Amino acid sequence: MIPYGWIQATKGIIVSDVPIEFPLRWAREAGAIALRSFNHAVAQRKPDHTWVTEADVTIERLLVSRITEHFPTHGIIGEEQTRRTIDHEFLWAIDPLDGTAIFLAGLPTWGVSIGLLRHGQPYLGVIYLPLLNDCYWSVPGSGAFWNAQLIHVAAPRPCTSDDWISTPSTAHRRYTIDFIGKTRSIGATIGAFCYTARGSAIGALINTFAIWDVAAGLAILQAAGGVAAELSGTPFDVRTILDGSTFTTPVLLGAPEYLAVLHKNIHLRTPAL
Amino acid sequence: MIPYGWIQATKGIIVSDVPIEFPLRWAREAGAIALRSFNHAVAQRKPDHTWVTEADVTIERLLVSRITEHFPTHGIIGEEQTRRTIDHEFLWAIDPLDGTAIFLAGLPTWGVSIGLLRHGQPYLGVIYLPLLNDCYWSVPGSGAFWNAQLIHVAAPRPCTSDDWISTPSTAHRRYTIDFIGKTRSIGATIGAFCYTARGSAIGALINTFAIWDVAAGLAILQAAGGVAAELSGTPFDVRTILDGSTFTTPVLLGAPEYLAVLHKNIHLRTPAL
Repeated sequence: MIPYGWIQATKGIIVSDVPIEFPLRWAREAGAIALRSFNHAVAQRKPDHTWVTEADVTIERLLVSRITEHFPTHGIIGEEQTRRTIDHEFLWAIDPLDGTAIFLAGLPTWGVSIGLLRHGQPYLGVIYLPLLNDCYWSVPGSGAFWNAQLIHVAAPRPCTSDDWISTPSTAHRRYTIDFIGKTRSIGATIGAFCYTARGSAIGALINTFAIWDVAAGLAILQAAGGVAAELSGTPFDVRTILDGSTFTTPVLLGAPEYLAVLHKNIHLRTPAL
Repeated sequence: MIPYGWIQATKGIIVSDVPIEFPLRWAREAGAIALRSFNHAVAQRKPDHTWVTEADVTIERLLVSRITEHFPTHGIIGEEQTRRTIDHEFLWAIDPLDGTAIFLAGLPTWGVSIGLLRHGQPYLGVIYLPLLNDCYWSVPGSGAFWNAQLIHVAAPRPCTSDDWISTPSTAHRRYTIDFIGKTRSIGATIGAFCYTARGSAIGALINTFAIWDVAAGLAILQAAGGVAAELSGTPFDVRTILDGSTFTTPVLLGAPEYLAVLHKNIHLRTPAL
């Protein structure tokens, strides 16, 4: 049922140190586990008040085992507690199920996020949305892909009412947004990255994330020609959250020209609700 | 590939005048057509500035042909120009592809909407989201269903930050929303109805719609225990738009108790942007 097109598309790509086929296959394995419990999942609260399901834990265990088997010296950091030699040259940052809240709500755009950082910078990424069977991935120097198709962020031009940006589900409380186009909140940080990287959304606003939410997305976004910057305009430096801490300052994603537009049109609401 | 569970679930239901099996099967036929052009669709502007694809037109033609074949005396009104004896006791209101904009953007929650009104009131509804293979439907006197499962709007209790409401993609320009929970804009009016009717969202805010956008949704929502009222509190009367006109006043969907909460927390922004 799941087409292999996007794995075949990798055949011509030479990656010496970390073959992209590995995380692509792991993502698909992980997605199959998540799909089995979609619409049946039982959730528990974590100390940070967010939700965890058995699928999150099972998938993180699977991914850690696959990474350890193939890359025993690499570091790993995962949403569900994994912390292994995170000061290594290569650090895998994994979110077994990004969008657990929408997974529980029965919405579709949750997925598996597998990012690899090298010397503290996004290096390659795989994001798989199992229900849609959509895979977004990137390889250093070879660009970003949506399934077997090369993708790029939206080419800059004046915004119209047809353009849309991805916003967080708390945007109504935190921001005033004077954007001529549409705002859509589809439910997970990976969605913000994927739909921006493929040029469907012209950009995105994200907030409250950890390294495992953004490592794969940043690699894909950058390979698709996009950048990430704080809402204030300061470049976003992923190294500040390599320790697993939460970044609460709002961050914009997109082509640099669109970031300038969004920077002018999105403001923190004072006071936030 | 498409399970027949939700058609088997209808076996015990006796409907004398309009068997629900008919619109269920038509919706699936229509969905298959839409799926074939998803991610390949070419769009054109309509005079009202919204988009239309070949799939919209082909599906409306199919649905009109099926309705005419089985119910030659019934009225039909469709998004793509169909207007047939709309003053008849039975009036089918069909949207061949609700959410054309997100269909074109590659987002998942677009679908086929087939509503039947009787004496100007919502009577039965079928909404099918082909990419998710999710069907929402209702039968007068037998309740509302999501696939083979009986559904109900969320049971009223105090709202928390986990609760969410469905909002339009223009909400940032039109409203201030002081809701403790989340707002999600997933892209089509049918989504607002479906996720509210099954109790995933506690409610929804919709605006700028025609009868074909809401006929099926209203039937499903009401059968699931929900109501629709204008943001001002006035009950929403679908008879004002039976002629195909556009309703631009904001409308809330949900259990009556949640409508009271949303009424207090959502306000028109003055001036709108």
